[in-house]
Amino acid sequence: MTPPRSWVPSAGPDSDFPLQNLPFGVVSAGDEPHGVVRIGDAVLDLRALAASGLLTEPARDAARAAAGGTLNELFALGAAPRIALRNDLQALLVDGAPYQRTVTEFLTPVREVDVLLPARIGDYTDFYVGIHHARNVGAQFRPDAPLLPNYKWIPIAYHGRASSVRVSGTPVVRPHGQLKLSETPVFAPTRRLDFELELGVWIGPGNQLGEPVPLDGAETHVAGYCLLNDWSARDVQAWEYQPLGPFLAKSFGTTVSPWVITPEALAPFRIPMRRPVDDPPPLAYLDSPAHRDHGGLDVDLEVRIRTARMRESGDAPAVLARSSSRHMYWAVGQMITHHTSNGCDLRPGDLFGSGTLSGPHPGSEGSLMELSHGGADPVTLPNGETRTFLEDGDEITLTARARRQGFVTIGFGECSAMVQPPIG
Amino acid sequence: MTPPRSWVPSAGPDSDFPLQNLPFGVVSAGDEPHGVVRIGDAVLDLRALAASGLLTEPARDAARAAAGGTLNELFALGAAPRIALRNDLQALLVDGAPYQRTVTEFLTPVREVDVLLPARIGDYTDFYVGIHHARNVGAQFRPDAPLLPNYKWIPIAYHGRASSVRVSGTPVVRPHGQLKLSETPVFAPTRRLDFELELGVWIGPGNQLGEPVPLDGAETHVAGYCLLNDWSARDVQAWEYQPLGPFLAKSFGTTVSPWVITPEALAPFRIPMRRPVDDPPPLAYLDSPAHRDHGGLDVDLEVRIRTARMRESGDAPAVLARSSSRHMYWAVGQMITHHTSNGCDLRPGDLFGSGTLSGPHPGSEGSLMELSHGGADPVTLPNGETRTFLEDGDEITLTARARRQGFVTIGFGECSAMVQPPIG
Repeated sequence: MTPPRSWVPSAGPDSDFPLQNLPFGVVSAGDEPHGVVRIGDAVLDLRALAASGLLTEPARDAARAAAGGTLNELFALGAAPRIALRNDLQALLVDGAPYQRTVTEFLTPVREVDVLLPARIGDYTDFYVGIHHARNVGAQFRPDAPLLPNYKWIPIAYHGRASSVRVSGTPVVRPHGQLKLSETPVFAPTRRLDFELELGVWIGPGNQLGEPVPLDGAETHVAGYCLLNDWSARDVQAWEYQPLGPFLAKSFGTTVSPWVITPEALAPFRIPMRRPVDDPPPLAYLDSPAHRDHGGLDVDLEVRIRTARMRESGDAPAVLARSSSRHMYWAVGQMITHHTSNGCDLRPGDLFGSGTLSGPHPGSEGSLMELSHGGADPVTLPNGETRTFLEDGDEITLTARARRQGFVTIGFGECSAMVQPPIG
Repeated sequence: MTPPRSWVPSAGPDSDFPLQNLPFGVVSAGDEPHGVVRIGDAVLDLRALAASGLLTEPARDAARAAAGGTLNELFALGAAPRIALRNDLQALLVDGAPYQRTVTEFLTPVREVDVLLPARIGDYTDFYVGIHHARNVGAQFRPDAPLLPNYKWIPIAYHGRASSVRVSGTPVVRPHGQLKLSETPVFAPTRRLDFELELGVWIGPGNQLGEPVPLDGAETHVAGYCLLNDWSARDVQAWEYQPLGPFLAKSFGTTVSPWVITPEALAPFRIPMRRPVDDPPPLAYLDSPAHRDHGGLDVDLEVRIRTARMRESGDAPAVLARSSSRHMYWAVGQMITHHTSNGCDLRPGDLFGSGTLSGPHPGSEGSLMELSHGGADPVTLPNGETRTFLEDGDEITLTARARRQGFVTIGFGECSAMVQPPIG
């Protein structure tokens, strides 16, 4: 059976955004920021759709909640209205659907709008669930014991900075910071600017303070997924992070992709969570049969770099790494349950980062610190340039595609930003 | 010369809130939350005052900005309108002022209103500038080298959890967490629940991403001060905090006092920042003559405990510790400049914690971990009870008073919360 496809011509099988995806976002076309759904190369205005009379009642509630300048209100509604809207949208956008002339009036080419941050972020939490990354980084400090004793018991995380999260396309300025190059630290631009390849998770509806979220049902608090680049200044980090963790080494900027990929779109790409047999099982509050059966997520991830010289020569970006969300040692449901296990409240619009998702093999490392072995082994690009860490003018682009035999491939769009020289 | 006093009878010299204080807050009297100014035992409704015609124009702008359900808009305005409003309020509230009958109508006894969190917190950053605390805690891990090498160079900080900050009076539920009691961790209620005595700082107006705030002028981004109790689960913290810092050991709740004590009210209590002669001078971006002359703050701090048995016996709370904001190794201006030195943006309503402000002597420790030497030496209370860490039913109250010869003493009010048993 051929899977259904949309009458929108650009939403074909090569698009990141076919009928099976339908992610949410917020855009402005010179007017007030408002919620949209992405289909092919176009965005569908949810304000207009909500007012059109074409939607069923629960779907209209969702479209109205998404009509404003942020998606927080949509995230707060939870799964049922979002699924109703998805069903109505698929019925309206599928080949042969009625009302095509009306719906066409709600579409705008994405190149004609400014694509904005999709939500007002309350708190941003960055996890560390990429076990190969934790092992690679740990090995640079502790060759004999790369993983700390708590790693296989706790989905390790820290609070990140919400104010400096920006949408794809916003440049990242090379930050100043304290560098410990010799006896006395100096204040200077970072020399070890790095990217980190992460999956992002948008939270909603969330929980009340003092009411932990059990593992079964934890994913009802996922509003959607994105890509996240956790830019890092490794030299700043090395000097500042004891004893309270990363601070200014990360808070100068975090980039997210603009499209909120729904749990419904990713449903075909769920996989079991498997632990090596010698690993301890999770404690009871982090374990359940349903979670073991399909707690995981199988999404291919890619990092590309385009240097200033590549842009000048008209060269295509070069692939730096290929990895997968399979390499998460802890799944999103476990992250939510652990985060709320002390009663901490999550709110609609909170953002999680997965932590760097490196794979086990060379070429699958999700940061330059890993790819260059702490700067010891420069990476050679196709045009002969080399990189240990990022240089001004480098543009880093993260992409993600979920593929599975018998299902339509969906993509996340791009999470991209260019490094700009330091100020002053 | 006798300092001026207010015609409000309860605003006498024994009150935390005389004419010289006038902190802002947000309350509800069964109606919409709205901004007020505290005077003696009353609150003055800024909505009514803004509409009264009694204010000059810049003061009216400030009163209008504070009239809503949070003070974020007031914080965004910066110092000039806030100072204009203070001047007008002092002229209206001083003994012998005109319009007393009108202004009296704007006053409500504070016992008749619900006192709320004063601002919508964007990001919450917790510093670690109490050097005696850092030394006391470090000594429990590293007797030979209590202070880490970066301590005298960097105002160490980490991102805290904004969602779980609550106003004084909100109970704190003893959190569950992973405890490493033997080979295998267990998930159970914390056995080492602690308080931390901190000064809080409300931020406004803040800066744009990529625009660091220089030290001279940094304090123009302080909207006011409060008390902050950074509740901590020490056993959870010990097991989870490597390598990314405290997370669930803190995020179950943070308590702040409700009154925003303005920089103007604290102006008489500024002191020089002095470093021991053997300490390195701050790097240039964290140093300036003005800052050395009066970057510090001299506020007396106190921690009291009232146990369930003390309440039943009608005993007064017992003093656990007395300390001072003098013990900050880094000042608030340096905290702001360091935080933004990488371009990180601060927003109106962001909250800083100072970190635990212990003094150098026994009885001045700002946490039970320090008072009981990691639980080894129980603290004996006046009624014979002992404490290593907090028990259910314990109520911890932080207070602060700024005193100086020739000036009217001002207080911060209370930062108080009772420990409730774990759920389930």
